[in-house]
Amino acid sequence: MALNPADERLAARLPGGVLREIAPAYLEEPRGRFFGKAGLVAAPRDVEEVAAVVRACAEARVAIVPRGGGTGLVGGQVMPEGPAPLVLSLERMSAIREVFADEGVLVAEAGATLQQVREAAGGVGRQFPLSLASQGTAQIGGVLSTNAGGVNVLRHGNARALCLGIEAVLPTGEVMRDLRRLRKDNTGYDLRDLLIGAEGTLGVITAAALTLAPLPAETGVAMLVVESPPAALGLLALAQGRMAGGVTAFELIAGQGLEFLAEHFPQMRQPFDPLPDWLVLVEVGLPAGLGAGEALEGLYLAGSEAGLISDGVIAQSGQQAAGLWALREHIPLANRAVGAIASHDISLPLSELADFIRDAGEMLAGEGDMRINCFGHLGDGNLHYNLFPARGRRREAYEAQRRHLSRKIHEMVVMRGGSFSAEHGIGRLKTGDLQRWGDPAKLAAMRAIKAALDPSGIMNPGAVLAP
Amino acid sequence: MALNPADERLAARLPGGVLREIAPAYLEEPRGRFFGKAGLVAAPRDVEEVAAVVRACAEARVAIVPRGGGTGLVGGQVMPEGPAPLVLSLERMSAIREVFADEGVLVAEAGATLQQVREAAGGVGRQFPLSLASQGTAQIGGVLSTNAGGVNVLRHGNARALCLGIEAVLPTGEVMRDLRRLRKDNTGYDLRDLLIGAEGTLGVITAAALTLAPLPAETGVAMLVVESPPAALGLLALAQGRMAGGVTAFELIAGQGLEFLAEHFPQMRQPFDPLPDWLVLVEVGLPAGLGAGEALEGLYLAGSEAGLISDGVIAQSGQQAAGLWALREHIPLANRAVGAIASHDISLPLSELADFIRDAGEMLAGEGDMRINCFGHLGDGNLHYNLFPARGRRREAYEAQRRHLSRKIHEMVVMRGGSFSAEHGIGRLKTGDLQRWGDPAKLAAMRAIKAALDPSGIMNPGAVLAP
Repeated sequence: MALNPADERLAARLPGGVLREIAPAYLEEPRGRFFGKAGLVAAPRDVEEVAAVVRACAEARVAIVPRGGGTGLVGGQVMPEGPAPLVLSLERMSAIREVFADEGVLVAEAGATLQQVREAAGGVGRQFPLSLASQGTAQIGGVLSTNAGGVNVLRHGNARALCLGIEAVLPTGEVMRDLRRLRKDNTGYDLRDLLIGAEGTLGVITAAALTLAPLPAETGVAMLVVESPPAALGLLALAQGRMAGGVTAFELIAGQGLEFLAEHFPQMRQPFDPLPDWLVLVEVGLPAGLGAGEALEGLYLAGSEAGLISDGVIAQSGQQAAGLWALREHIPLANRAVGAIASHDISLPLSELADFIRDAGEMLAGEGDMRINCFGHLGDGNLHYNLFPARGRRREAYEAQRRHLSRKIHEMVVMRGGSFSAEHGIGRLKTGDLQRWGDPAKLAAMRAIKAALDPSGIMNPGAVLAP
Repeated sequence: MALNPADERLAARLPGGVLREIAPAYLEEPRGRFFGKAGLVAAPRDVEEVAAVVRACAEARVAIVPRGGGTGLVGGQVMPEGPAPLVLSLERMSAIREVFADEGVLVAEAGATLQQVREAAGGVGRQFPLSLASQGTAQIGGVLSTNAGGVNVLRHGNARALCLGIEAVLPTGEVMRDLRRLRKDNTGYDLRDLLIGAEGTLGVITAAALTLAPLPAETGVAMLVVESPPAALGLLALAQGRMAGGVTAFELIAGQGLEFLAEHFPQMRQPFDPLPDWLVLVEVGLPAGLGAGEALEGLYLAGSEAGLISDGVIAQSGQQAAGLWALREHIPLANRAVGAIASHDISLPLSELADFIRDAGEMLAGEGDMRINCFGHLGDGNLHYNLFPARGRRREAYEAQRRHLSRKIHEMVVMRGGSFSAEHGIGRLKTGDLQRWGDPAKLAAMRAIKAALDPSGIMNPGAVLAP
């Protein structure tokens, strides 16, 4: 490597063998909106090496961009502004350190992929109930640093709810060893939850003790046709009333998404013809003794009687269940094939959600010709509200409108008590939104905490808090 | 009121009508270990008045001790050292501001009691699944500030897990308005969880959006005789394997506790004679369609076959279930009647728990004649490990040993990866323990955060972090 003199000096202070060849993959993010500057890439092998890298950077006043699998969607993993940072990749710290099957706890290093963690849990007859489309690549350090969500939040919570303890290197280079395996521990401020979701701006998570849930004795999946979002919400309430914590996923799918699927994945068999306006995908996980099929049939009957459901299929096998899930999981791929004008990862209080969908649709109808694919994790109030060109038009035709449309949608969400970033985080994409919509006292406290823990400002500068 | 000149000046700067007559109740805590100094008592009526009080105290450099129901067990609510503080009582902010039944969310002011919140939830066919013996007095602000636990943590988590958003006054007097009703919201640092469990040292929680869980369709309670703590843990694993999230409480009761009950509450009918060495109280909450009695019978049979259970009763009515719970809930009262030498609110990784009980018993056998009542929330790894005088001796006889014994027990807990304060917090009682056993990097970060958010050091000084 040919290094500039400053990088040369920093490199000399790093532990031996941690540097990696710089490669484009370290400087990119999936949406192609941000490109990082090429500096050093360090891939430490253990927490002591991470601490040594952080100390060296702190002394040299070189910024650090922590990097997991790089699947984040808001540019938290690449730093396009300022002097080139050191990219701190956790790729070599990928061990599952310990599995405590009886406790339902697993200790993973930050570089382990979500898939690895899920497989290790499955290997001891448990589950790690966080599931993302990107789980083969996403690393657990990034999953925690962004407090990732996914499809099972309804039952098991976000990443935050699945973490008992962390090991982390703070911006001073000190190692915080708090890898607790305890369900109850009230000994001081909750720094674990402060680092979780801080997107690498307050330190680097190097390992985590994660909770593994028992596998439900019975699982089942159904896809049900509903007339409207209010009917879908009514069905959600009905399902939760009947099955308490047994509803593990409740996804909303719009007819527009099914049309995109039909266009771009015509080989996928869709269960309903003609395509319905709205579907929900319901997954249940139940105790022994209660058949999941029976429970879903009971829900179907009750939902039909209440006028909430007009049609539906209940998977009769694991393969059928996987087929229904595949439809849901291919919607983002179909979206990508169509090419969105703008995407919005929003959440709303459940009682505001249907009105938002109605009002946003009306608002957009006045803004020109476009297609809306509104889908997502209805049970959590989390919608992916994405806008697409009208048939025959190209996304570039909407470039002038894009920011204006997103601003209006976010405004409508915030006015209803919702969030302009439900599960993706702030990264560099939404720092302006956070400044605009964030509570001023909260923002001031965030800046005070950032300055207190990272006085040199080296940890992922420009992410979360705009400079 | 006759005020000293400094208090007179401060009083003049407070909003009209917020001062209350000082009364002993504002200066006491249940264990009688700490007594507060008599200063001003302010009871604001809304968040703006709380902010005005905090600003006035910040300007006058007068300490503030936030006070809820005063039921905390570690002295967080009274300040015996230094100049007399202002006691900030939330008693007049006790409204349930809003109930969103369909969302499963309720917004309560900090001064609402836990009982009030539970009743408001019940009134809309939901539950607030946090239950404490002190719930008629404990206020929700204190419950959150101490991240209270209780008997349903196994299924529903600590207070932290049941809070979606807070409104709080920061030490600067700024109001943080973050009363979100969202299950997913990744917009900046998790200040909610930072204030939760901070015991009033980083600000005052004035209201909270709390999650209400669906009521289970079926509930049931059983009391089962097990031979030993390992058998109890085996039964826990069996129950969770069979019922996944359906186990809502799993409490361990020692024969010693039953003896205390027999001595001090002889009118209470105990189901087993002779008194067993160990019992567990199991509560289940299940979806519709699966009888709870049937599920508990299935557990009983499977547990018997596995050699884990030797006897048991399954409640056949709500009244019988309440009777079994009453036995569990009277154990702390019986303890109080006996008079403990020392109490320990500890938690351990589940796989360390049985060995700890064995080793601690052996250690104490070498320390003299005493009785151990070890009981608590086994499902969470949370034990109340309390020491009592031998029959015929008085607790005062152990005074010289008390600190030494607690130190040894905490040491054994910490060495096994456990916590010396599982659910009660640090308060003023355990600041020394926190300094001794806390992770140094974590403690340094806590001090940095405290200094950043409360630069004048007015919020509950001396609690959590020793001066």
